[in-house]
Amino acid sequence: MKTDSAKPVAVVAMSGGLDSCVTAAIAAQDYEPALLHVNYGQRTEARELKAFNDIADFYGVKRRLVISLDALKAIGHSSLTDFQMPVSEANLESTEVPASYVPFRNAHMLATAASWGEVLGAKAIFIGAVEEDSSGYPDCRAAFYRAFEAAIEEGTKPETHMRIITPVITLNKAAIVKEGLRLGAPLHLSWSCYQSEDKACGVCDSCALRLRGFRQAGVEDPIPYAIRPNY
Amino acid sequence: MKTDSAKPVAVVAMSGGLDSCVTAAIAAQDYEPALLHVNYGQRTEARELKAFNDIADFYGVKRRLVISLDALKAIGHSSLTDFQMPVSEANLESTEVPASYVPFRNAHMLATAASWGEVLGAKAIFIGAVEEDSSGYPDCRAAFYRAFEAAIEEGTKPETHMRIITPVITLNKAAIVKEGLRLGAPLHLSWSCYQSEDKACGVCDSCALRLRGFRQAGVEDPIPYAIRPNY
Repeated sequence: MKTDSAKPVAVVAMSGGLDSCVTAAIAAQDYEPALLHVNYGQRTEARELKAFNDIADFYGVKRRLVISLDALKAIGHSSLTDFQMPVSEANLESTEVPASYVPFRNAHMLATAASWGEVLGAKAIFIGAVEEDSSGYPDCRAAFYRAFEAAIEEGTKPETHMRIITPVITLNKAAIVKEGLRLGAPLHLSWSCYQSEDKACGVCDSCALRLRGFRQAGVEDPIPYAIRPNY
Repeated sequence: MKTDSAKPVAVVAMSGGLDSCVTAAIAAQDYEPALLHVNYGQRTEARELKAFNDIADFYGVKRRLVISLDALKAIGHSSLTDFQMPVSEANLESTEVPASYVPFRNAHMLATAASWGEVLGAKAIFIGAVEEDSSGYPDCRAAFYRAFEAAIEEGTKPETHMRIITPVITLNKAAIVKEGLRLGAPLHLSWSCYQSEDKACGVCDSCALRLRGFRQAGVEDPIPYAIRPNY
């Protein structure tokens, strides 16, 4: 990930998970990345932040913004931010909006990215949303990103223009793993588990999708798991 | 402001200023208001929060959410959040985006309102943006609110539908004052000054617009001022 000043700046929203790690690798091909991380009171906040910083260090990116958002935890109603709600075990066949859905979460990521991007003169925002493979989160649909891009265009200065780029949105996890490997992305530094911080639990939706993706891609996931079911 | 449970719920973003005070009064005619306040590191954060709570108490609204957002202060580039930048004296003729513009601030308000509104089952979000009279903030234009409403529709659960209602957006300050008086809104509890917390400064853009509005409405502004220029 070169910091070639001839490239335009892009804000990359990076949780530190697999999808955002690969998204950052893709962004760096054509843009100078500015990496944004949002702590929102999720269970694995500390572990995700470590993954974010490890990946940013790997690429030598100095321009980072880590912010804390208390709204989503205060609002609750998600198993990720309300610790009274259990993190459900994976059901990869379900078409329901899952209990881990954080109401309209990605809008907060995009609003923050757009505010920072406007100050930086960024030309794009990258976010690693995945539509087909993401268990039905409404804020991971392509139509949402097109609509939010229009809102940025209308709600910022006349000279501000930012595309929202979702390079993995139509890929399944196996294709994301393969793309990450092709680009040399540090998948071993990423963290996806919704509930554990030392070893990934192996049983939450996020672990299940990740493990299935690596299996279908024909490679072993390099991170440690408490158990590794064969999804 | 009755809390009639037969009314649908609306989230009302309320800074505690004149515009949002009148917006809350309008919202309460047809909706049960849930009042949202966002501290974002602005100079007059404590005074605005007092105004918010005073107005909420006046109306007896129990459903309140006060959140703190560190992103906008961390991003800076506004005289409201970067205390190294001076708050400029009023220039009501300027067509430039003013130094007090906080990059894409209202998107953060709307994202928070939508997240909370989704959990509450709200049918609307009210926000007291003013287009003509607001010194050129790009996130106060009607087109922005239409675009953000579409983003909420695309990015929330299938059963979630919220209109964004901006009831004072086309009014000038005099008309807002008159509407507030007509509805019995507690204008004496509202706070608009960008830089002072005991007596309003009388010279910032926000004080100038407010004082001119009251003068044109033919009534005296009931809040204390350090000086009261005749705008």
